[in-house]
Amino acid sequence: EMGRYFVDWFNGAGYQVRSMGSKDWPNIATLCDGIDLCIISVVIDRTPEIVERIGPYLPQTAVLVDVTSIKRVPLNAMLKAHSGPVLGLHPLFGPTTSTLDKQIVVATPGRDDDACRWVIEQFSLWGSIIVMSDADEHDEIMEFVQSLRHFATFAFGQFLASKKVPIARTLEFSSPIYRLELGMVGRLFAQDAALYAEIIFATPERRALLKDYISSLSQNLEMLEKGDKEQFETEFAKIAQWFGPFGEQAMRESSFLIDKLIERF
Amino acid sequence: EMGRYFVDWFNGAGYQVRSMGSKDWPNIATLCDGIDLCIISVVIDRTPEIVERIGPYLPQTAVLVDVTSIKRVPLNAMLKAHSGPVLGLHPLFGPTTSTLDKQIVVATPGRDDDACRWVIEQFSLWGSIIVMSDADEHDEIMEFVQSLRHFATFAFGQFLASKKVPIARTLEFSSPIYRLELGMVGRLFAQDAALYAEIIFATPERRALLKDYISSLSQNLEMLEKGDKEQFETEFAKIAQWFGPFGEQAMRESSFLIDKLIERF
Repeated sequence: EMGRYFVDWFNGAGYQVRSMGSKDWPNIATLCDGIDLCIISVVIDRTPEIVERIGPYLPQTAVLVDVTSIKRVPLNAMLKAHSGPVLGLHPLFGPTTSTLDKQIVVATPGRDDDACRWVIEQFSLWGSIIVMSDADEHDEIMEFVQSLRHFATFAFGQFLASKKVPIARTLEFSSPIYRLELGMVGRLFAQDAALYAEIIFATPERRALLKDYISSLSQNLEMLEKGDKEQFETEFAKIAQWFGPFGEQAMRESSFLIDKLIERF
Repeated sequence: EMGRYFVDWFNGAGYQVRSMGSKDWPNIATLCDGIDLCIISVVIDRTPEIVERIGPYLPQTAVLVDVTSIKRVPLNAMLKAHSGPVLGLHPLFGPTTSTLDKQIVVATPGRDDDACRWVIEQFSLWGSIIVMSDADEHDEIMEFVQSLRHFATFAFGQFLASKKVPIARTLEFSSPIYRLELGMVGRLFAQDAALYAEIIFATPERRALLKDYISSLSQNLEMLEKGDKEQFETEFAKIAQWFGPFGEQAMRESSFLIDKLIERF
């Protein structure tokens, strides 16, 4: 779907675009002939294989780009399969987004940055914010931003479902902040299970992090058993100190949104 | 603090208000003489004891009200300590809220609803939304809305801190929805540890629920171990079905807020 999305955007900007699907392999040589840019947009697991297969057909000067939500593995596959310019991109939005304006795109340089620059500049022209990173940093941060966050939300929804919590009635009882938080949970389950499976399970590092998260929660069992409020407060204070000024910032930003929520609903 | 907050509101509405703290016990008889309403606003743990001690001094016709965030235990204590009208209230907002308009107050009737009606009507006049409930339903729902939700947020923040996640950098990399979700976490730690300890640990039922939540998470360990995407998708579909139309609603509401967030920041 992201592939089709970018076809529309590049077409709209006046580029000639050829798209290929799995049944177009017989024409691969013709499709790749003379192209300036090749964007790979397939599921994470199949990215290295597709890249490897397409590599030999690419003109030496063509920029090879992937838009996968992990970067280390695809970038290495692209560098191996193609000797020309290589760039990893991770657009942090889905194919239902109506504008690229202010949307974040992470770019992880692979090879020959000068030759790749026009691709990045095209995204800037569309109004996107380009965040430069290396693939390792990207993947580590995304472990938290995507995998952990989505898994935690999934597990929370899973627990509510297992307890058959009366959602509608809880909303009547609750503050806007709870409505907002529950909205974040419900929202996940209105979306594509396969996509989230892919994001959450993408790498062994991600799965290890999630197991860590589960053990980290279990560390609180004894405190709960004893009802030890003092221990809770001590731990809370340490975490608050670690969050530092972000706490106050988060307070301001979310209070702004809560007011919007009260206005609207 | 909620006590002082209500002193201001009742004063502002033209009532004569007397307030008492722990050093005012010698004057308790004078303070209670001829009053129409007694609002108990102390920490959860001490509520039954204070209610018991104040009961004998209350005029038979006085309405006895508590504003504790659990209702079963305080309501029973009030019914035992006072033979006149009794009403449990749980205002779902904190003392920093500048308006009572559209704020939710849960009311759990105790005894002599007719005599209690004017108190509820006063909150309606201030614009609050009164949600009627019995104490059991209130406490069960609040286990989820308050204790579980806050604990889950606490544990998520705890894990981020333990992993020393580079918060500021993750925000650069992330979509508005992540910013919103992280904001919900950071926000907690900008607030009062003692208050959250009290809410989270308030009852044995709450602590048992949180232990259930931790075990529920652990059920996913094997799925993570195997990287079993199919199992994830099956489970996801079941949960999505349980959420039902709330998923779409949550999608609409949170998308509205994300647009607001993009406009503002």
